[in-house]
Amino acid sequence: MARARTLADGVLGTTSPNPPVGAVVLASDGAVVGEGATAPPGGPHAEVTALARAGDRARGSTVVVTLEPCAHTGRTGPCTDALIAAGVSRVVVAVPEPTELADGGAERLREAGIDVELGVQRAEAETGALAGWLTGARERRPFVVWKAAATLDGRVAAADGSSRWITGAAARAEVHRLRATCDAVVVGSGTVLADDPQLTVRDADGRPAARQPLRVVADRRGRVPATARVLDDAAPTHVSRATDPAALLAELFDRDVRRALLEGGPALAAAFLRGGLVDEILLHLAPKLLGAGPSLVGDLGIPSIGGALTLEIVDVTPLSGDVQLRLRPTRHTGGRQHVDGGS
Amino acid sequence: MARARTLADGVLGTTSPNPPVGAVVLASDGAVVGEGATAPPGGPHAEVTALARAGDRARGSTVVVTLEPCAHTGRTGPCTDALIAAGVSRVVVAVPEPTELADGGAERLREAGIDVELGVQRAEAETGALAGWLTGARERRPFVVWKAAATLDGRVAAADGSSRWITGAAARAEVHRLRATCDAVVVGSGTVLADDPQLTVRDADGRPAARQPLRVVADRRGRVPATARVLDDAAPTHVSRATDPAALLAELFDRDVRRALLEGGPALAAAFLRGGLVDEILLHLAPKLLGAGPSLVGDLGIPSIGGALTLEIVDVTPLSGDVQLRLRPTRHTGGRQHVDGGS
Ligand SMILES: NC(=O)c1ccc[n+]([C@@H]2O[C@H](COP(=O)([O-])OP(=O)(O)OC[C@H]3O[C@@H](n4cnc5c(N)ncnc54)[C@H](OP(=O)(O)O)[C@@H]3O)[C@@H](O)[C@H]2O)c1
Ligand SMILES: NC(=O)c1ccc[n+]([C@@H]2O[C@H](COP(=O)([O-])OP(=O)(O)OC[C@H]3O[C@@H](n4cnc5c(N)ncnc54)[C@H](OP(=O)(O)O)[C@@H]3O)[C@@H](O)[C@H]2O)c1
Repeated sequence: MARARTLADGVLGTTSPNPPVGAVVLASDGAVVGEGATAPPGGPHAEVTALARAGDRARGSTVVVTLEPCAHTGRTGPCTDALIAAGVSRVVVAVPEPTELADGGAERLREAGIDVELGVQRAEAETGALAGWLTGARERRPFVVWKAAATLDGRVAAADGSSRWITGAAARAEVHRLRATCDAVVVGSGTVLADDPQLTVRDADGRPAARQPLRVVADRRGRVPATARVLDDAAPTHVSRATDPAALLAELFDRDVRRALLEGGPALAAAFLRGGLVDEILLHLAPKLLGAGPSLVGDLGIPSIGGALTLEIVDVTPLSGDVQLRLRPTRHTGGRQHVDGGS
Repeated sequence: MARARTLADGVLGTTSPNPPVGAVVLASDGAVVGEGATAPPGGPHAEVTALARAGDRARGSTVVVTLEPCAHTGRTGPCTDALIAAGVSRVVVAVPEPTELADGGAERLREAGIDVELGVQRAEAETGALAGWLTGARERRPFVVWKAAATLDGRVAAADGSSRWITGAAARAEVHRLRATCDAVVVGSGTVLADDPQLTVRDADGRPAARQPLRVVADRRGRVPATARVLDDAAPTHVSRATDPAALLAELFDRDVRRALLEGGPALAAAFLRGGLVDEILLHLAPKLLGAGPSLVGDLGIPSIGGALTLEIVDVTPLSGDVQLRLRPTRHTGGRQHVDGGS
């Protein structure tokens, strides 16, 4: 199952609106005889590719897959049919299908005499590559990763507005890798006006990647000028007049976006946070102090420490001289006011 | 030498104005026959204790010590005499004595026919327990550790001034351990007026430690009221009218402070940073967002990103849900303005 998850990680950002799934075909002696991951929309699903690679050796095999195989006919035929036709004897699934449309895969397989096990390493799969797609399936909105770069005193730019570069080359390269795993990159008009970013995926030499996420600018008042770099022809761009983050995300969901990268700035980030619409945070902290300049996040309407928005640190990764914190909002506030011995 | 450094770490904060030194006596077969660390002022130095423990086995031994043995008579006799009397054959030293007063230890040992090696793992010893004392010896001021607790957006308190508690119990316990390694704990009048902290060293049950660092309040205008908890009889307190951090540190140096913990707040921290008077930073980051409230550090007079005060991350330590960053200012600014492909 770990291998199936890794296969799914490898196609994250290339499959929307389909889920990034990984599948492994194991012969009865445990040998891997086929592997597959979801192809871009219109292409084969993970199981189909893995079965094709296994060929005849799929007969009597066990197929390990991160998401319950679909039983409906979309642009490709149902995966259940392919599994039955290949003569598979057992299917091990991490995450049961959450949508009604594709539901019934396990049932159909069982009716065909295949042994099906659901929920194996489910939590790992749900918080991994599938997280974005699951959020979409359950809440009908894209999964939102908020990424920001700040100094230790929480400044995202200096007093004069300059923000290039807060972090070093390693952190910036990481941002391009991250963009490549997303279907859209979202900024507010303030960031476009201040920094005029291009928001494309580029390699270390500045060469653009073949696949580019949709660039999105939240621009309620139409302040973004036609000359902005985000409007160049390097990638598609959506300038949105949506009045709030939920409406913006609905627009993106309709454009098949399942994983969106929120790249700033403080005002838009605050609006998403207030709306409970941030699922993951990647904070690149530079070991610097500025003492002035815009703060990481705008007003959240929090008056006292007990009301602080509480997150959970998932991991801490050094990035050359900088450090990356990956965080998730915790559902409870957690900020109880303690009254004890004092400082 | 690593063992000698560990012994020195164990007495950090209890030896000022003397240096925290560790010493190990090794028999010719490499067996450890004696260990010692500097006793509180008036007590024996590390080498003397280690030799006493070794007894007769010190004859022909190698003594490994973090600082060059002293050749002068202070409150205790010179360590060089003790080493010669014990019949030691070799002395391995990390850091050569930096002050003229105690200088000449190696020379005196060599004259007595003892083989002396200087500078072994010197950098590790200089940045370890000895750092504070060396700063004092070279710059005639205490070594300054700035400790602060902040949210991810760099807030040290909420909009209403509440700051208890930003971090969790593990981080707060770490602060008490840290205080115990310092000779003084320094805050500005603003922190006293806002939080009325007691600033003592206490254990998890709130019991005060036997040894308490000097509590210091920078209070140029005499705003601290007589009822402030920092003025209680739990530990000595120095309320200073010094007009700038350098003058304040001079007062503390005269009071035998060699390692001072600067515990806030933004205004005093900014003054120390502007003066280049912070040697180490311990930042406790809580995975929280406030969106408002006082920032980690007050104005530093830095207008643009290229002028950012640049630090180096020494280590990153998880503290239950929080994370501790240990940092050192880098001597260069490092914040060159890059002009390249953009974001
Ligand atoms: N270090 C980093 O990671 C980073 C990243 C990004 C930006 N920045 C810095 O942040 C600064 C810009 O800050 P900013 O806050 O102005 O940028 P922003 O959040 O990108 O843009 C704010 C603008 O977005 C528009 N907007 C659209 N929908 C909104 C909504 N629902 N809620 C709030 N605003 C919405 C608003 O303008 P309308 O009312 O006209 O729609 C608002 O003025 C710059 O200095 C930039 O360098 C830093
Ligand atoms: N989270 C944390 O780690 C932490 C730690 C400490 C404080 N805090 C928070 O910080 C806030 C207080 O901030 P603050 O900046 O007022 O506290 P502060 O820096 O402790 O005190 C500032 C005061 O120190 C005095 N001072 C003396 N010498 C000074 C010098 N050379 N330069 C500047 N000031 C000097 C000044 O008053 P005079 O002019 O009257 O001398 C100044 O108003 C509170 O909300 C508190 O909760 C948080």
